[in-house]
Amino acid sequence: MSAQHVEHVEMTGHIVDSLLLPKVLDAILSRGGRYHIETLRLGQRQDDPSFVRLEVRADAAEQLETILADIHPHGAVPAQSGDCGTVPADIAGAYPDGFYCSTNFRTQVKLAGDWVDVEGQEMDCGIVVDPTGTAARCVPMTAVKTGDHVLVGRQGTRVFPPEAEMRRHELFEFMASPVSSERPKAVSVREIAAAIRKTRAAGDKVLAVLGPAVVHTGGGELVAKMVRDGFINVLFAGNALATHDMEQAFYGTSLGVSLDQGLPTVEGHEHHLRTINRIRRIGGIRKSVETGRLTSGIMYECVLRDVPFVLAGSIRDDGPLPEVVTDMLAAQDAMRRLVPGVGFCLMVATTLHSIAVGNLLPAWVKVACVDISPATVTKLMDRGTTQTVGIVSDAEPFLRSLAAELERGGT
Amino acid sequence: MSAQHVEHVEMTGHIVDSLLLPKVLDAILSRGGRYHIETLRLGQRQDDPSFVRLEVRADAAEQLETILADIHPHGAVPAQSGDCGTVPADIAGAYPDGFYCSTNFRTQVKLAGDWVDVEGQEMDCGIVVDPTGTAARCVPMTAVKTGDHVLVGRQGTRVFPPEAEMRRHELFEFMASPVSSERPKAVSVREIAAAIRKTRAAGDKVLAVLGPAVVHTGGGELVAKMVRDGFINVLFAGNALATHDMEQAFYGTSLGVSLDQGLPTVEGHEHHLRTINRIRRIGGIRKSVETGRLTSGIMYECVLRDVPFVLAGSIRDDGPLPEVVTDMLAAQDAMRRLVPGVGFCLMVATTLHSIAVGNLLPAWVKVACVDISPATVTKLMDRGTTQTVGIVSDAEPFLRSLAAELERGGT
Amino acid sequence: MSAQHVEHVEMTGHIVDSLLLPKVLDAILSRGGRYHIETLRLGQRQDDPSFVRLEVRADAAEQLETILADIHPHGAVPAQSGDCGTVPADIAGAYPDGFYCSTNFRTQVKLAGDWVDVEGQEMDCGIVVDPTGTAARCVPMTAVKTGDHVLVGRQGTRVFPPEAEMRRHELFEFMASPVSSERPKAVSVREIAAAIRKTRAAGDKVLAVLGPAVVHTGGGELVAKMVRDGFINVLFAGNALATHDMEQAFYGTSLGVSLDQGLPTVEGHEHHLRTINRIRRIGGIRKSVETGRLTSGIMYECVLRDVPFVLAGSIRDDGPLPEVVTDMLAAQDAMRRLVPGVGFCLMVATTLHSIAVGNLLPAWVKVACVDISPATVTKLMDRGTTQTVGIVSDAEPFLRSLAAELERGGT
Amino acid sequence: MSAQHVEHVEMTGHIVDSLLLPKVLDAILSRGGRYHIETLRLGQRQDDPSFVRLEVRADAAEQLETILADIHPHGAVPAQSGDCGTVPADIAGAYPDGFYCSTNFRTQVKLAGDWVDVEGQEMDCGIVVDPTGTAARCVPMTAVKTGDHVLVGRQGTRVFPPEAEMRRHELFEFMASPVSSERPKAVSVREIAAAIRKTRAAGDKVLAVLGPAVVHTGGGELVAKMVRDGFINVLFAGNALATHDMEQAFYGTSLGVSLDQGLPTVEGHEHHLRTINRIRRIGGIRKSVETGRLTSGIMYECVLRDVPFVLAGSIRDDGPLPEVVTDMLAAQDAMRRLVPGVGFCLMVATTLHSIAVGNLLPAWVKVACVDISPATVTKLMDRGTTQTVGIVSDAEPFLRSLAAELERGGT
Repeated sequence: MSAQHVEHVEMTGHIVDSLLLPKVLDAILSRGGRYHIETLRLGQRQDDPSFVRLEVRADAAEQLETILADIHPHGAVPAQSGDCGTVPADIAGAYPDGFYCSTNFRTQVKLAGDWVDVEGQEMDCGIVVDPTGTAARCVPMTAVKTGDHVLVGRQGTRVFPPEAEMRRHELFEFMASPVSSERPKAVSVREIAAAIRKTRAAGDKVLAVLGPAVVHTGGGELVAKMVRDGFINVLFAGNALATHDMEQAFYGTSLGVSLDQGLPTVEGHEHHLRTINRIRRIGGIRKSVETGRLTSGIMYECVLRDVPFVLAGSIRDDGPLPEVVTDMLAAQDAMRRLVPGVGFCLMVATTLHSIAVGNLLPAWVKVACVDISPATVTKLMDRGTTQTVGIVSDAEPFLRSLAAELERGGT
Repeated sequence: MSAQHVEHVEMTGHIVDSLLLPKVLDAILSRGGRYHIETLRLGQRQDDPSFVRLEVRADAAEQLETILADIHPHGAVPAQSGDCGTVPADIAGAYPDGFYCSTNFRTQVKLAGDWVDVEGQEMDCGIVVDPTGTAARCVPMTAVKTGDHVLVGRQGTRVFPPEAEMRRHELFEFMASPVSSERPKAVSVREIAAAIRKTRAAGDKVLAVLGPAVVHTGGGELVAKMVRDGFINVLFAGNALATHDMEQAFYGTSLGVSLDQGLPTVEGHEHHLRTINRIRRIGGIRKSVETGRLTSGIMYECVLRDVPFVLAGSIRDDGPLPEVVTDMLAAQDAMRRLVPGVGFCLMVATTLHSIAVGNLLPAWVKVACVDISPATVTKLMDRGTTQTVGIVSDAEPFLRSLAAELERGGT
Repeated sequence: MSAQHVEHVEMTGHIVDSLLLPKVLDAILSRGGRYHIETLRLGQRQDDPSFVRLEVRADAAEQLETILADIHPHGAVPAQSGDCGTVPADIAGAYPDGFYCSTNFRTQVKLAGDWVDVEGQEMDCGIVVDPTGTAARCVPMTAVKTGDHVLVGRQGTRVFPPEAEMRRHELFEFMASPVSSERPKAVSVREIAAAIRKTRAAGDKVLAVLGPAVVHTGGGELVAKMVRDGFINVLFAGNALATHDMEQAFYGTSLGVSLDQGLPTVEGHEHHLRTINRIRRIGGIRKSVETGRLTSGIMYECVLRDVPFVLAGSIRDDGPLPEVVTDMLAAQDAMRRLVPGVGFCLMVATTLHSIAVGNLLPAWVKVACVDISPATVTKLMDRGTTQTVGIVSDAEPFLRSLAAELERGGT
Repeated sequence: MSAQHVEHVEMTGHIVDSLLLPKVLDAILSRGGRYHIETLRLGQRQDDPSFVRLEVRADAAEQLETILADIHPHGAVPAQSGDCGTVPADIAGAYPDGFYCSTNFRTQVKLAGDWVDVEGQEMDCGIVVDPTGTAARCVPMTAVKTGDHVLVGRQGTRVFPPEAEMRRHELFEFMASPVSSERPKAVSVREIAAAIRKTRAAGDKVLAVLGPAVVHTGGGELVAKMVRDGFINVLFAGNALATHDMEQAFYGTSLGVSLDQGLPTVEGHEHHLRTINRIRRIGGIRKSVETGRLTSGIMYECVLRDVPFVLAGSIRDDGPLPEVVTDMLAAQDAMRRLVPGVGFCLMVATTLHSIAVGNLLPAWVKVACVDISPATVTKLMDRGTTQTVGIVSDAEPFLRSLAAELERGGT
């Protein structure tokens, strides 16, 4: 009759104004549970953390379990928690049943009574505890080896969801609605420029994720300059972006359309394939630069400035270029290796790569996603990349404004 | 030094789980103020209202005023409030300076010590108090008469913002993200059908707001059937929808494209103008039905079933049809007169009319907006029509599913 | 058995490379007719006109009539044609049955044996012949007076469809696919700047048709400068554009969003209504400038430079501003009066106004339509505005590039 | 002074009404050349082919070469042509310089005086002539082996571009503008159903290319039924489609959203990963069906009916499923092997796969591409997939109409 199944949970942080506590209370009630607020200490100033301790009750054990599962991602953790539990992987390339599924939020696990940060935080992975039992890290499904100690269940785990209000006051001052094109664009440009400078000043890297429309719309030189000036420090793209960029260097066209005239050129549609063939004959992008055959553009600047890049393949690729990683797991690993140290990520005009990279980034790396289609930004947000500010705008004119803003501030 | 300017405010309702209290606390801190929670009674069950009494402090009178302005729309009202204040309108067709600007939320004003509901609730209006001082109503700017007692300032006013969680549990069970097309559509269809039935069962009217693509995509007959079966009780549209509908009745085409073949017909582009000319020669839509010249379609069914309609003009209109209201203020008034009694509003494939009608509806009339462009739905939400559920889908196939779902349930 | 019904038709101009002749031949065959090419003189150089004389045969009189109706808009005219036929209008505000429906192509009618240009060319109108029988002009349906000599049938009429290749080589060098965002934007900007200069150099006027997103995205000052520098000579817009523009002048916000900070301001959503109320209290935009109360922005510059503007009402309007024409027929007439002398039209971020203005312009006025939504451009093209080049881009960044390009060339 | 450089070219087919001849004449003039029409025999009926022989003149050899290159893809071939020329590949995985770049049009090469059809026609490939000199086929760049006889130059090649009017009268009766959503949808549905039946009746295969939104919108069961009823004979998709489909089978959700309720479920976001893990533990999709663990859905029906499928990987994949081909070149080859015998291709809700498959199909395989975003369809057309009819609509409601239409006709 009365709710017999009880658990005590605690939350700390900006839990009221970041809407975490209300969400937890709502979740408890929605699942038919009850709560009693045992302690509630509200921060008096904006920077003060709050603390709450709740008694959660449910009529059945299963119901209580559902409630606890539902509130866990909001940072609500049982007040007394034992160490996390693991099970050895019985086969390679798959987790044991009941494995803990990671988010991109900062996560800790309890090992020998201590809360320890999980390394390589990334969503949709399992967590493997070190044989020594002193460390834990996110491991993709295909990388699981037989015998790995894989985390199961929620016990001994806690997550630190980003606090909504922090987002607003930290890297970005504005909270653009992610899907409207009707926002003051100069403000977005200024904020992104500031984010880039702040990232650089902190010694962190700026990651650019670029789609082919960057070159089609005529923004190639603007990006090349950003690489040259040190505003882009890592590049993720595909075969198309790199090929269009080098087609522009070789022929002045992008998919055969003259970037000066806006008109298709004779046999221009062949330039794409001839560019790839030429680079393959030379032996790659790097070698094309070293031998003086490629002398301008985004890829040229990347090679010249030692800006690491990953060109990930896709099934729509022609060729591809020798540097393109055609195996998807290898491409993900190549990107994964370059994520540490990234402090800010600028995505322009690419749906596939944006989602892929959004999946790899921990929640504390801020992301600005610029695309002319509101649907791309929506997709990114829907998949849980909550740290993203979406800007619906056109690649070249937007990059032109951004380049001018960065110029104004000096390199 | 310490904050000397103080006001006590109160809030009642689902203020925690509907996120109203957190928003208020955040707003106070964001504007540099402080708060002390004097009383907080949390509802223990989902249906129990909560109550909070806050002391709000600020360093300057102006700052306190800003804070109070900011939290007022979230339902935070000074604990002790005098009667509302009015100023007589000095000229017709404009409010006095400092006028109170209405929202679409339920609003009360204090008159002779009593809280009284404002009539004709509508956003972006002024509020005029009856000469007797016992009633108040929303009045559009152009309708103000010299001497009208127009409400000024926030004193003696309070609003009841819709509580987020209510929305979810009432008319719609689902909370579709308003901008993604990637949602299960059969669920949306079922929920809208249920909302229509529920509205009819409650004795309220279903308002349809329709754009020309309803006919272009071939959905005219589906809508005509919904009118015939009593599922649409009021119609707002424009010259184009009505003309395309009657062009289909006369020629089987919509803007000259055969709705059977999907192909342009010879001289078909003239059908549009010839249809309007024909109706003008007959003397109107009603007369065309009465004289047996118009025998099918949406407009035919509306005339036959005495379903009132407003055809509002626009600058892109050809003709227009005799029934079209070419003056925009007259058109708004015509629609305004039909709003009372409306319990549910279905908007399909029209940006302009959707926003116009969204502006006229009080916040407690639920709205479903179906459009193939995510931008239309976003625009509607951005303008404050918070009671809207947006569905990104294609007019005809969506209406076909809806008609089948309504059919299944019987009329 | 053999086709007994025969007509001889002729065509002149760039009928081969502009694809007019092929379309005519295809149309004849598609309708089951036959043709015999009696004379075909092909131009040897690109500038040389071609001439063709065809014998068209069909099995039935009605079929032949259908064919002739179908090929007439492509410029194919019976070799021997009598004078055009007219019928007196029996009622006001409607054409007689069988009226000739105008296109936006240059049109001639045969009066007393001579081909005479139709005045006020505009699509979807009737044509009224002067009582003297020496002139003819397009007349909207509602402007027909009883007794007007209204053109009926196709006899004695001929149209001059724009020749596709001319479009490319005249005002615009590029032929952008109208719906792709993936084009080099700097080229589009350069071409539009060139078209504006060319128009000004020819003594013609540049018409700007602007939607509210121009101000929302932060492009207001850029447009104001274009007005100031004489690059915009006529302005068509609505209540929203003008209000947002003046809200920016008064409050620094657009619909309450700070254009400097990108953030909503306290009570900012009221700025919109307060701006309209203020202008109404002053007595209009013009008077606001004259009395020194409005001192910046697009409307300010228009008043200062005597740039005529039409603000057309719509049903979504708040207020509206005193200068807004709330009756749609009056608004169309006001725009119609300003069309003569317009040589180029730039439409930015407005679907409704773009279509409305597209309906009013003759086919020889070139149009560039810039919108972030491909659907807007598509809609414009689908309604027959063939002289339009569509550019899918974002208002503010695009205008910023355009302003810079115009700057470069000097005023 | 007079043009000394001369070539005689010929064209055959529906060259006038398909607009091929006009395009050729325009191209000659645009490049500054001249033409003399030596012979022009126009077909008198729609089915009769026409023939033209042109003398093409230019002032310089290089200019003449440019002209010939420009008109070649329109089917204009030198009247006297020698055998095609080849060069042995000097390295593997790249073509020799000057290689002939294939289109997706039917192509012939002259070998020992005879015109021979090229096999495996596919765009953006080179052509390799058999060592025996009697056959030729398209070969992707990476498949070139040292010593392969690779076609260089245009000599001895001719292409047969699809004739515009054929498209209209063959598989599809309608010529939907590819980017407008405002078309009668029931017609499109009927035509696609007819195309599917016609394809099946001819003994050809129907290829479906599906994106994840098919399942998200609730269309999974509709597609499963189409597979079951033999209306889909080959399936190309990705890891996401297959995972969502099986997530629905296991959990009733798609990315954690209940397809019955439209609401997110507790821990639902983990269903995606748990589904992949489960299938990996079982050993694959096929084995899951065979062992009775997977009992419904698209993938289940494909396994049951021996409908071959290719699941191509992408960098945004979680897992992936064991059957996913993670190497892009291997995935392209797997798809390439299934293309022969395909007579019709239905693409729904996938940009990446649509472009990829569009690249692989010869121009004579008709394609219908259904997507809610006009940009996807535009992209497909811009890349040269001219045989495509684009339909802007919503996946589930469209598939529902299609399934009902196919049902009506019986299996």
